[in-house]
Amino acid sequence: MPLAPAHPQSSRPEPPPGQARPPVGKPAWWERPGLGYDVGGLRLGPATLAALAEREGTPLYVYDSARVLDNLARLRAALAAAVPNGRVFYAMKANRHPLLLRKLRTRGRCGVDVCSPGELLLARDMGFRERDISYTGTSMSAADATVLAAHPQIVINCDSRSALRRIATVAPGRAVGLRINPALGIGYRQNPRLTYAGGGGTKFGIPWADVPAAVAEAKALGLKFDGIHFHAGCGWLTPQLPLLDRILGRMARVVAALGPLRYVNIGGGLGIPLVKGDRPLDLAAWARVVAKHFGSAAHEVWMEPGDYLVKDSGVLLLEVTEVEEKAGVRYVGVNGGFNLHPEPVFYSLPLEPVPLQPRAGGRRKVTLAGNINEAHDVWSRDVRLPVPEPGDGLGFLNAGGYGAAMASDHCRRGEWREVVV
Amino acid sequence: MPLAPAHPQSSRPEPPPGQARPPVGKPAWWERPGLGYDVGGLRLGPATLAALAEREGTPLYVYDSARVLDNLARLRAALAAAVPNGRVFYAMKANRHPLLLRKLRTRGRCGVDVCSPGELLLARDMGFRERDISYTGTSMSAADATVLAAHPQIVINCDSRSALRRIATVAPGRAVGLRINPALGIGYRQNPRLTYAGGGGTKFGIPWADVPAAVAEAKALGLKFDGIHFHAGCGWLTPQLPLLDRILGRMARVVAALGPLRYVNIGGGLGIPLVKGDRPLDLAAWARVVAKHFGSAAHEVWMEPGDYLVKDSGVLLLEVTEVEEKAGVRYVGVNGGFNLHPEPVFYSLPLEPVPLQPRAGGRRKVTLAGNINEAHDVWSRDVRLPVPEPGDGLGFLNAGGYGAAMASDHCRRGEWREVVV
Repeated sequence: MPLAPAHPQSSRPEPPPGQARPPVGKPAWWERPGLGYDVGGLRLGPATLAALAEREGTPLYVYDSARVLDNLARLRAALAAAVPNGRVFYAMKANRHPLLLRKLRTRGRCGVDVCSPGELLLARDMGFRERDISYTGTSMSAADATVLAAHPQIVINCDSRSALRRIATVAPGRAVGLRINPALGIGYRQNPRLTYAGGGGTKFGIPWADVPAAVAEAKALGLKFDGIHFHAGCGWLTPQLPLLDRILGRMARVVAALGPLRYVNIGGGLGIPLVKGDRPLDLAAWARVVAKHFGSAAHEVWMEPGDYLVKDSGVLLLEVTEVEEKAGVRYVGVNGGFNLHPEPVFYSLPLEPVPLQPRAGGRRKVTLAGNINEAHDVWSRDVRLPVPEPGDGLGFLNAGGYGAAMASDHCRRGEWREVVV
Repeated sequence: MPLAPAHPQSSRPEPPPGQARPPVGKPAWWERPGLGYDVGGLRLGPATLAALAEREGTPLYVYDSARVLDNLARLRAALAAAVPNGRVFYAMKANRHPLLLRKLRTRGRCGVDVCSPGELLLARDMGFRERDISYTGTSMSAADATVLAAHPQIVINCDSRSALRRIATVAPGRAVGLRINPALGIGYRQNPRLTYAGGGGTKFGIPWADVPAAVAEAKALGLKFDGIHFHAGCGWLTPQLPLLDRILGRMARVVAALGPLRYVNIGGGLGIPLVKGDRPLDLAAWARVVAKHFGSAAHEVWMEPGDYLVKDSGVLLLEVTEVEEKAGVRYVGVNGGFNLHPEPVFYSLPLEPVPLQPRAGGRRKVTLAGNINEAHDVWSRDVRLPVPEPGDGLGFLNAGGYGAAMASDHCRRGEWREVVV
């Protein structure tokens, strides 16, 4: 198979010793240090993905742990520039692969945010200390509360006044925080599925106007109220920062009215570019917004990124099964469907399809279809790619968050593997 | 807890011996023989659901196997009225609980339609003979084809010309059918997620205008072409029958042009009422449409219902965790979310929420929220229910299809059980 023109940018992985650099060309929008074409095809960190797919089989998720740690370091530096006492808790629900969790704890010295007893117990199993775990769940059951009570040092953000009462019952005198609903939502291209806490109201948190009453109830219940949490949506980029500014301003006023706190958790939701034309989030601009509202705070400023740390670390590898013209549409079938990664179909969040091996010839419009028996099981419609052949490998970029963590065995097509490189 | 007015219809389950009949009242739209209130609360077939939830814990799926067999018998009778040689293959992807599969095979003497090697192997494990298995998959990989080749007696409906070539390679001379795309879609309230084969084109099947060329290719490849298959969408009811009439008419013309066939599989998609106001599908009217186009066929007429057999057999039992007023909305939290049953959130297909124990007092508008940390994780918005209390049980009706079969462990909230009564 001929190598397509490729791109010896400094941002490209170094070729293995003894192999030639690929020819000069224009890099794709998604290329970066640690992700790009080399003589063996697409590389992610140290891995040549076609070779990995060959060895491990597909469907295969590949995660680059170095990228996760880079993302963490970049974000932590921006947070440190914004506030004197910043702290990062990784939102585990994005990706709970044990090796990533371990790297984040040991190399990243990172806390973890969990949203269920199952995640809490996994965090403990992975060696996170209780004090490095923050619990921000919703619809707390009696069974949930019992598990929380057995872990006295974790931070608990109560999502409702009912949750306060549950905690007071099973853990009298316990320190708790409150999740507040800022009544403003922010998300990737203001996608409604990702825009939490919107004007229409969401299930999450105490309405911000009701916070004084909730704090009074916490105190009346004998609980020690020591922090607040809010989260307004997912995947936002630089264009959404003015909205974040409004949200943080509103929350800063709530915090000021509450008196001394141990922490304010400003949530997560920081996004990454998903399609050509998206620009990476301007972290310096983000830090200025955070500093404006919380830069001189006496309390700690916590945050809980999920996708920002893991999404662009992951590639889902699939194999082309067929290329078939149907009623004027060129369908490229692959050996995995939306049960493996629900974001394209159910959240309108695209994964970028990329050939594992460059292929000569022009790009054509193709529709990438999965192998689940549902009409909407399509990865991408009308994308321009070199037309592949059955057996070719495709990588779906930005698959590191909310992919395997949400996968199902629908149609008994739930066999996939995950490797960390 | 006082019993609300309940409804001694003849359609209601008989109370257990020695217990009084509940007081007179108007039945809810969803009550039927085998599903309704009794002195112990909501009953499904022989089971009192509150007692079952107490004993087994929640989240719990409960399936009434007698209802599944009743649905099958009703449908089979209608099919028999329409065509001389009808045959039913249950579409396993709706619900693959082993006990239901076993009942369908032994008591129902039913075939099974599968869409993946995993489903095929499960069907074999459950005792279905190869000749009673029809495979209708999409995006066939080399690995898929290898599994199919190892089962020489199953029926294979090829979804593309590529699939024909794969089968010819691994199973020379094999008999195959073709899945045809009728280019007309039909679904529950014409919901676009359920309307397959629409005018915009879908990934499924051979475009009907290309069928002669595909048949010629099958023959040139040495395959024995002996049947066709089509499926146009899911959940349709009586109002959609005129559209089904057009689809069957178009397909009957294709069939007539093809010469003698062993079978024509007219797919599934027959729906059930999901909300008040939906009327049950008029099976006699459906049979007349089928008879009009295929009533005098020499070939067998097959069909592959999924939801029609299992959906109304299942109830998902959850427990109320909290009742909380937030910004003017009365949220009722429950101990399960969309990861257990994706249809309400992702397909806009409602499950009917019903208290397991009738509760006195008026109905109020409530919003039922799940325990997953995503804003859209809401079971029902603004439904009118007697306001429950934490600990109360709720049943979500019509949960027997595409629920547990598609469930995930998102947020590590994937612990649920299933029982067949």
